[in-house]
This record gives sequence, structure tokens and C-alpha cells, in this order.
Amino acid sequence: MKLGFVGLGAMGRPMLGHLIAAGHELAVWARRPEAAAEAARAGAAVCATPAELAARSEVVFSIVTTGADVIEVAFGGNGLAEGFRRGGVHVDMSTTSPTVARELAGRYAGLGVDWLDAPVSGGAAGAQAATLAIMAGGEAAVLARVQPLLATLGSRVVHVGPAGAGQVAKACNQMVMVSAIEACAEAMRLAAAHGLDVAVVRQALMGGSAASRMLEVMGGRMVSRDFSAGVEAWLHHKDFGILLGEAHRLGVPLPIAAQVWQQLNALMALGWGQDDTASLLRVLELAGGT
Amino acid sequence: MKLGFVGLGAMGRPMLGHLIAAGHELAVWARRPEAAAEAARAGAAVCATPAELAARSEVVFSIVTTGADVIEVAFGGNGLAEGFRRGGVHVDMSTTSPTVARELAGRYAGLGVDWLDAPVSGGAAGAQAATLAIMAGGEAAVLARVQPLLATLGSRVVHVGPAGAGQVAKACNQMVMVSAIEACAEAMRLAAAHGLDVAVVRQALMGGSAASRMLEVMGGRMVSRDFSAGVEAWLHHKDFGILLGEAHRLGVPLPIAAQVWQQLNALMALGWGQDDTASLLRVLELAGGT
Repeated sequence: MKLGFVGLGAMGRPMLGHLIAAGHELAVWARRPEAAAEAARAGAAVCATPAELAARSEVVFSIVTTGADVIEVAFGGNGLAEGFRRGGVHVDMSTTSPTVARELAGRYAGLGVDWLDAPVSGGAAGAQAATLAIMAGGEAAVLARVQPLLATLGSRVVHVGPAGAGQVAKACNQMVMVSAIEACAEAMRLAAAHGLDVAVVRQALMGGSAASRMLEVMGGRMVSRDFSAGVEAWLHHKDFGILLGEAHRLGVPLPIAAQVWQQLNALMALGWGQDDTASLLRVLELAGGT
Repeated sequence: MKLGFVGLGAMGRPMLGHLIAAGHELAVWARRPEAAAEAARAGAAVCATPAELAARSEVVFSIVTTGADVIEVAFGGNGLAEGFRRGGVHVDMSTTSPTVARELAGRYAGLGVDWLDAPVSGGAAGAQAATLAIMAGGEAAVLARVQPLLATLGSRVVHVGPAGAGQVAKACNQMVMVSAIEACAEAMRLAAAHGLDVAVVRQALMGGSAASRMLEVMGGRMVSRDFSAGVEAWLHHKDFGILLGEAHRLGVPLPIAAQVWQQLNALMALGWGQDDTASLLRVLELAGGT
């Protein structure tokens, strides 16, 4: 199939590679010339504008940073919307707000272009291994058309509901995940204050009801004090802005999500936004204690 | 081996059964005559006092509700301490505070009796399947002596550190676990407020970085709105009293643990203490919202 791709970061690069490896004809548009050059070496054609990319693609994937980025790529000057033919599909795998996703779906519908919000969980490692969890919002028939493509990128694709529903699931995912990181940090801090070996405590917890992927991965980073970024913490801070905004709009209290947001605010203020979210442990340590 | 057992609740009953099945000679002491009668039918001898139980046992296990219960059984009138010979071992698998565990270890040491705090995680299901995670505090040599016995009760035994360390690990375990339940409840609430099918959202999250045993088990209970108790919520409320007390004593801030405690306070005030901790979802729902 003729496919387009926008967003050649730590997630996008391996995803592009998987689509090329699956035999599809890929084109990219990239803001940074180095990113375009790297994609060209990987076998993708390079387009001058998003509009040009959409004009030659049946399906365009995007995985960029913010909702504003997606809106700009889709409906800015020379945006995807100017190039798509009727029946084209924009699959946005970025993490944005449900509101942005619904708005874009609506604008595309007026042009006869289909939309899916399909954010992912699993990080760069999941992107490389093609084991991402993909949470899709949009029409079932559209998802069915791109399902084989998504299957080359992830190991689980769930159709959550209509446009925006993928982003709601992703917000829920981020809340549960970062809350688990914070809980893990608090456990490590309490254990350390008692003078215990935190590696052993983590090991003890892994066998019981507290077991989780975050206790395994981020607990391991905390134990080895490796705060170099897997996913940079400022991205989680951004995600919490989205989800607490949604909670505010809907009048839903999210007490621990709100508290985790404050801890992320502290992390950012301390200058650790480019580091790993495991740095939530360092935020707790700054307060001192035994 | 000649073993004693105190605490024939939902956890203790299957544990007693495993020890009998492993070929040991079991005796029990129970406050409730029905519990003693049931243990007798399972093949255990019944003693009139904890002292009598300790006098005929090489190792006594206890799994009771509170620290005060353990202190009473061990050092109250006709307590275990009056019956133990030198070299006897008290393995307490209750969830108490590290302070209680250290105090009892110290008092027993004066009598030449050994102590382990060995609280467990995995719930009644884990006790029945003998897959409990056991977190042991005390001397390594004492743990080595009872290790074969613990191996009949759980699938993972970790020596966390000296007396009290098992209870510290259990406090960490409860914090991580109940925080995960609350995060799951908040995710379900946000998804429902968006009009989504929470079963599908949980399914989507299970494949990614948010995956955890609690998302699986307690998320499943929330989806099916089964609030009948696996573990009664008031026990978790009690555990949070212990762990926030420890945090206060040590001067360690635990922001989301503190927030979860408030949610458990609300759950208790609403009269759901005998129900499952999945009721944290109902606490959020009471606030209304879309």
C-alpha cells in the first residue's frame, strides 16, 4: 500500500521501519532535514509538504508531540487536508486530547476523509519490538481497513469507541501508569527510610498483589538509580495536563491523578523534565527524612 | 515437625491445610470454638491456651488481624511466650507495624525464642493455591530453619532484612497495591464519564505499560460491579493507618499514599468497610459528574 508517515522521533522511526519491512511503499514529511534524510536512507520517499504526502498516500500515520502539532500538520498551510483524496485515512498515533481528536475527525468528515485516533502504549522498546498496545477511536469500518497495518506495529489493537475514545483510553493508561510510578517511588522511599535494601523490597513485592509492569521496569530504574530518559518526564507532565483538563471539564474528581500531577510539577520545577519519570523518587528524596 | 497455628480466618484455614497435607503434626489455639472444631476436623489437635500450644510446638505460626492481637497472643496471659522452650520460633504472618514486630522480636530474644515477621501478599486465593508472596524479617539462620515450611505456603519467600523488615515490605506492598486500585477506579470513572465501555478500556490498558495484577483483578471487579469482599476494605484502611504512621514517624512524605488513605476514609464513612476495596470506584461515583 502507499502509506505516509509524519513524526520520526523515538517512536516513529522504528514504526516506519516496520511498515517498510512489511512491503509497503512509504513516504514521509519531516520538519527536520536530518530526520527526512534518515527516513530516505531507510527507503522512504521524502515529500516537501504534508499536502504532497497526503496526495500520494492511501493512509497517513502521524505520531507527533502535541495536539497543536497534529492540528498544524492536518489543517495548517499545506496540511494533509489539502492533499487527501476522498476515502483517505489519517491515523493519528500521537497522545492528544479527546477534544482535539473529535474536532479533527469532524473537520475531516466534511472532506470525505476518514480519521482514527490510535495512541499507543509500550514506549520506544514496544515500538522497536512491534509490541505496542494500540487504543483506537473512530469508525469500526475504518479500523478494519487499517487493521493489518496496525498489526505490524503492535501486538494488541483494541477498538475503544468513536473518535476521541482512543485518546480517552490513552489518558486512562497514562494516569494508571504514572500513578504506579509514583506509588513505586513512595514505596522505595519508605523502605529506604527504614534502612532496607530497596532492590530486595522490590523483589519481594514483585511476587504478590502489588506486581505491575511499572514496578518491574521503573522500580528497576529506581533501584539502579538510572534516571536517564526512557520516556522524558515532561511528556507525562503534558499528558496529565490533558487528563486533568478533561476531568475538570466533565466534573469528575480524580484525587490521586491530581496529586501525581503536583509531583510532576515539582519534578519539572527541579529541572528534571528531560530525565526519566523515575525521577519522581528524587522529588521525594529532596524532602529529606530519616 | 510439631507445629502450632493461631488465626483460622480466610487466610489461615487453607494455610493450616497445606501444613497438615505436608505431613506435619499440627495443633491450634482459637478464640472461637467453631474455628477450633473445624481445625480439629481438618486433623489438628486443639489446645486450651496459646501457652499450651507453644509448649508442644517447635514452630508456631500466627496470622491474626492487628498488632494488638499478636501482642496478646504472644505476651498476654497464658500467651505463647509462657509456653515456648528456648529455640522455639514464632512466625507471625499477620500484617502489623514494623514497630510491633521489632518489639516482639526483642522481648522473645530475652527468652531465647526466635522470631520472624513474615507477612504475605496474594489474598485468600493465594493462600488456597499456596502461591503467596512471603516477605520475611528476622535472622537469616531462623528463616533457613523454617524455609521448607514457608515453601508449602507460598511460591516466593524473600528475606527482606532484620526483624520488622517483613512488615516494612508489606506496608510498601499495600501502598502500591491499593494505589493501583484507586488509579484503576479513577481511570474507570473518567472513561465512564466519556460514555465509554469500561470493559473495553480496561482491555485496551492491559496490553501496555499500565498493566498490573490489580488492573486485571480489581479492574475486572469494577467492570462487573462485583463489590462483594475478596479482602474487606477495612483491612486496607487499617494497613494505611500503619504505613502513614510510619511515614510520619520517619518524616517521609508519601503524597499519593496520603490521598489514597483519604479515599479509604471516605469508603469507611460510606459504610462499605465490609465490602471489597473495588468500592473505591463507588466513592468517586458519589461525587457525580457527567
